Amino acid sequence: MTLQRRHDPESRGFASDNYAGVHPEILDAIALANGGHQISYGEDAYTEHLQEVFRRHFGEQATAYPVFNGTGANVVGLQAMTERWDAVICAESAHINVDECGAPEKVAGIKLLTLPAPDGKLTPELIARHAWGWGDEHRAQPRVVSITQTTELGTCYSPQEIAAICEQAHRHGMKVHLDGARLANAAATLGVPLREFTTDAGVDVLSFGGTKNGMLLGEAVVVLDPGAVRGVQFLRKAAMQLASKMRFLSVQFEALLGGDLWLRNAAHANAMARRLADEVRGLPGLQITQEVQANAVFAVLPKDVTERLQKRFRFYTWNEHTGEVRWMTAFDTTEADIDAFGAAVAEELRES
Amino acid sequence: MTLQRRHDPESRGFASDNYAGVHPEILDAIALANGGHQISYGEDAYTEHLQEVFRRHFGEQATAYPVFNGTGANVVGLQAMTERWDAVICAESAHINVDECGAPEKVAGIKLLTLPAPDGKLTPELIARHAWGWGDEHRAQPRVVSITQTTELGTCYSPQEIAAICEQAHRHGMKVHLDGARLANAAATLGVPLREFTTDAGVDVLSFGGTKNGMLLGEAVVVLDPGAVRGVQFLRKAAMQLASKMRFLSVQFEALLGGDLWLRNAAHANAMARRLADEVRGLPGLQITQEVQANAVFAVLPKDVTERLQKRFRFYTWNEHTGEVRWMTAFDTTEADIDAFGAAVAEELRES
Amino acid sequence: MTLQRRHDPESRGFASDNYAGVHPEILDAIALANGGHQISYGEDAYTEHLQEVFRRHFGEQATAYPVFNGTGANVVGLQAMTERWDAVICAESAHINVDECGAPEKVAGIKLLTLPAPDGKLTPELIARHAWGWGDEHRAQPRVVSITQTTELGTCYSPQEIAAICEQAHRHGMKVHLDGARLANAAATLGVPLREFTTDAGVDVLSFGGTKNGMLLGEAVVVLDPGAVRGVQFLRKAAMQLASKMRFLSVQFEALLGGDLWLRNAAHANAMARRLADEVRGLPGLQITQEVQANAVFAVLPKDVTERLQKRFRFYTWNEHTGEVRWMTAFDTTEADIDAFGAAVAEELRES
Amino acid sequence: MTLQRRHDPESRGFASDNYAGVHPEILDAIALANGGHQISYGEDAYTEHLQEVFRRHFGEQATAYPVFNGTGANVVGLQAMTERWDAVICAESAHINVDECGAPEKVAGIKLLTLPAPDGKLTPELIARHAWGWGDEHRAQPRVVSITQTTELGTCYSPQEIAAICEQAHRHGMKVHLDGARLANAAATLGVPLREFTTDAGVDVLSFGGTKNGMLLGEAVVVLDPGAVRGVQFLRKAAMQLASKMRFLSVQFEALLGGDLWLRNAAHANAMARRLADEVRGLPGLQITQEVQANAVFAVLPKDVTERLQKRFRFYTWNEHTGEVRWMTAFDTTEADIDAFGAAVAEELRES
Repeated sequence: MTLQRRHDPESRGFASDNYAGVHPEILDAIALANGGHQISYGEDAYTEHLQEVFRRHFGEQATAYPVFNGTGANVVGLQAMTERWDAVICAESAHINVDECGAPEKVAGIKLLTLPAPDGKLTPELIARHAWGWGDEHRAQPRVVSITQTTELGTCYSPQEIAAICEQAHRHGMKVHLDGARLANAAATLGVPLREFTTDAGVDVLSFGGTKNGMLLGEAVVVLDPGAVRGVQFLRKAAMQLASKMRFLSVQFEALLGGDLWLRNAAHANAMARRLADEVRGLPGLQITQEVQANAVFAVLPKDVTERLQKRFRFYTWNEHTGEVRWMTAFDTTEADIDAFGAAVAEELRES
Repeated sequence: MTLQRRHDPESRGFASDNYAGVHPEILDAIALANGGHQISYGEDAYTEHLQEVFRRHFGEQATAYPVFNGTGANVVGLQAMTERWDAVICAESAHINVDECGAPEKVAGIKLLTLPAPDGKLTPELIARHAWGWGDEHRAQPRVVSITQTTELGTCYSPQEIAAICEQAHRHGMKVHLDGARLANAAATLGVPLREFTTDAGVDVLSFGGTKNGMLLGEAVVVLDPGAVRGVQFLRKAAMQLASKMRFLSVQFEALLGGDLWLRNAAHANAMARRLADEVRGLPGLQITQEVQANAVFAVLPKDVTERLQKRFRFYTWNEHTGEVRWMTAFDTTEADIDAFGAAVAEELRES
Repeated sequence: MTLQRRHDPESRGFASDNYAGVHPEILDAIALANGGHQISYGEDAYTEHLQEVFRRHFGEQATAYPVFNGTGANVVGLQAMTERWDAVICAESAHINVDECGAPEKVAGIKLLTLPAPDGKLTPELIARHAWGWGDEHRAQPRVVSITQTTELGTCYSPQEIAAICEQAHRHGMKVHLDGARLANAAATLGVPLREFTTDAGVDVLSFGGTKNGMLLGEAVVVLDPGAVRGVQFLRKAAMQLASKMRFLSVQFEALLGGDLWLRNAAHANAMARRLADEVRGLPGLQITQEVQANAVFAVLPKDVTERLQKRFRFYTWNEHTGEVRWMTAFDTTEADIDAFGAAVAEELRES
Repeated sequence: MTLQRRHDPESRGFASDNYAGVHPEILDAIALANGGHQISYGEDAYTEHLQEVFRRHFGEQATAYPVFNGTGANVVGLQAMTERWDAVICAESAHINVDECGAPEKVAGIKLLTLPAPDGKLTPELIARHAWGWGDEHRAQPRVVSITQTTELGTCYSPQEIAAICEQAHRHGMKVHLDGARLANAAATLGVPLREFTTDAGVDVLSFGGTKNGMLLGEAVVVLDPGAVRGVQFLRKAAMQLASKMRFLSVQFEALLGGDLWLRNAAHANAMARRLADEVRGLPGLQITQEVQANAVFAVLPKDVTERLQKRFRFYTWNEHTGEVRWMTAFDTTEADIDAFGAAVAEELRES
């Protein structure tokens, strides 16, 4: 049997950064780590070295636990930070609330206390609405504030905004979790090292996203404050997130974070989103609805335009009621992709 | 940065088939599926085609749900087969009981009713000890019998043995789950198609193991009887086992199962175990303790011999009390590996 | 040892209907059921008869499962109505969301989809915000709408309002759960039989509250549509809500529901709340904030007045920010209690 | 409506101590605590005083948390002693393993590591079989040893036996939980204070059983070592075991434990079992199978005898295969009950 290619390797859309494949340097790294035997479940040479790689980015206290996917990283991290009776404060739009089929509740028994955040960002004022009731046994105890960077809405917290949230949380004995499925995009936008808006801002635990950043698959629970967690290695195993051939996760992270691939990929994706925003901003009938600070453009446009565009390019309607759409770019989006799409948007709007 | 190799690609041991890497044909398949955009979470062209591949092996009713690892496959499958108040009957030595950090209990709330099985195999007589009490609300309801093929002890059920278990289970309204982390090894040993001891024997749901069979990572929940499960796709997601870039799991399975790679790999690993058994059987002071029907040799030998051997080759002591050891072979074990190891065993025994 | 009374049996406050004791007729019933042996766990003569009692109120298909407390009733009922991957839509103010320490999430893995409802009542329009996404595995599946009657805010749905919610839910394949911790108060307010706003309105499962209605303890999961649930008796046991000496729960329900004690108690408590509302309504500086349709009065008054009143009578501040307080009456509240309290409110307001 | 008695208050059997009703002194206590308002959820005068009562029996560090039933007490206690990834070692015959519909697994995610114990009693030698593997993330971590006193088989640990188990457990960093559903029966048998085989022997947490000891309902999680638990009050609430009208649980415990009612009831039940054993021991065809150290007699007798006896008296067959039966006595069993039953046993055996 000869395996056949079943897709067009030159066709790209704007639906999700998950639609992209694997960066070639990552595939090379996997091949490099192949061959011979290595101890499984994380005692291999690549995973051992990985800690050094993560510490260079997140500080000397950081420990990384590779897992399979973002939901896994979030749920393992949040379990490690909470008692069985605790609750987690998050935005209504948070991935843990919206897109994980209830895994935080169902696997970890975590109650989510949600807050409306039109731009996807929590603030100390919003958090204050749920930050009360400690010691009252009738109330699941607010113990963690979980934020997403960059947010599900393509926006980005400043280091100062994160620091203010951490300061408030810690003052109340709460901890801060950061869902960093697109953490690299934030660093690229902010132009600062990763630790400046994580470790240095007071974040306790984060999920580092490798998949959307060009890996085949792989995320990591990164513990920044060892005092904030208990039992991560057991929780990872019991949450079915421990890879046997771990070397192949770890070497991908090394390929990403050992040099600047993580930043190149993210910066490129961000630039493509900005390019798209620049091309369509101001077109009559189209309104960009969120700041474009990462690799997503959110916009409202007439539904008939959306329908015609979706016949030509793949992307998602975000809000059926308002007609808002989401256009995402990835590490492999090209300028030509953007220009063709931007032109199509303009063209379809004209015909509306 | 140039990534460096951190291990010897020519060094192999006998500790676990998880210590092996990725078969080159699998890596090629991953590369083939790369490039361009594909819908994430399983709506890609490779996953679509995958159903056909699995149906060729398991029958027209089979549906495969790729997941990340064996624990994930088992827990998703068992959840789909059980109500919240059910129990699962298994051998004490079952992976779900021994090696999953309590994931069946902790993620799925499943009570395990365990049975002593010195050769790792359940029998209708053993199962009968727990097969009672339906309708009694004080007792978690026995709803599933879970067996492992080949077993954790390197033994293999015959198709008739599995059929007898299925017949008994179904008669009581129970279903049969099969942990097939090494299902390919069983087909190689038995010399029959996969369906002969699964679908045709009455198994309802199985976990198909790709990782130990040469994949980078990937297992599949394979539903053989659609009436035996509910909500697999939701349970997979909520159990954090849904890959975003699913095409890269699916194409590995296609590379494995589309042709005969699965069988070549398993047959080779099995042959290497038999070769090792043949070489050491009859050596004074060494006793092989289980039938060698897959890719493992279990043996008792003097502890000082084990200690000296473990300084030269990597393998695990299985039972500290009896001095039993486990030697595993993999798809990449060579005859030279076996001969060198066999010679070392003989040599160290002579010096004992 | 002679046991001593440690409290004043004539002192009553306005904090909660849970602060009241047991109605004397209930104590008599417990004594009546005492003596001799009766099969435990619900196969006694009182529990057997109980089904007839509940069916008289809720229709021929109703089945009642006595449990210990309201949280237990809600969580058992909701589990019986949901798959492992489902979600429940409820008001932000719902007891299941606010006052159960996360039991629905932690015991049952249920995701709650909450809605703001200033008067505690859901509407089809509100529900519509969460009633979407069936079939999408990334979203916990909205399967149940849970409403509270009378609500946590002392308001009462009309039979028509409940019927409209049920109609909408059923149209979408969802079921309706009703937390009836104060169901009797609703019947008293509406002046209709219990079934008119439950069974006949389309409710599938409800929690019937005995404790606040004058029992020592006891609630019941009442299944109105047998097709809406699975495994209630197993779930009750596994949720640790199955009483061994069940006859003493069942006979209390019989004392309550066999005659009109349930209605007398509820009507009296409601009347006392209305009497209080009538006495304080219009007092300068005091604003009643919710319709008084059950046994609670919600009001805003100056904080210094509240503080002085709380030194004289026990009641809770409901909202620290707005100064809203909650005054609850019980089956044993007397007109004299109300008049004394009403006078005190007026007096303290005058001194403000 | 006048409530009617539906059972014969003079009829008693030998099926279970749960079939008995409420001791009259307990009913009096409930009546005493009635009337007026008391703060709910445990801040009442009776619950406050209760700590003193329990401390007199269990030492100055003891804290009691009343709950509804034995499963609730066990699951709340075990949760408070374990991390999410822990396991509990117990006898196969333990109530937590056999009779709780999987509540430890399903509510708390606890993996049970069971051991065969023909007399219901664990020993350090048995425990050693599971006492290993700490630090290995693949294994649910053995953290608690749970024993039952008196056991489910009517046998009784000596203080020394319990001390030896505690010593072993603590040496390994494990804690000891004691299911004391019949703890009073043990004290009566041993003739020593309760603390001598609990607190003083090294037990960390126990479930104290009130229901079988004559209460209407009520058990207590009693924490003997405050350092062995976390979050009991939250876990009790989230496990749906927090009574609103708590005073009525607490006053029952006070009636039981404030004087000697607990001991009178248990000693009487024990004496009745011994009387029965004495009457039937040596009858041809009947074999007593367990030491009679509490309120149960286990015996093997011909199946036709059992069948005829069960038409005249209610009791359970314990083991269908061996024909073993269980005869239980209660606080209200009379000498006449025993003599009538003993005579019947003799009579039916003669006719066999």
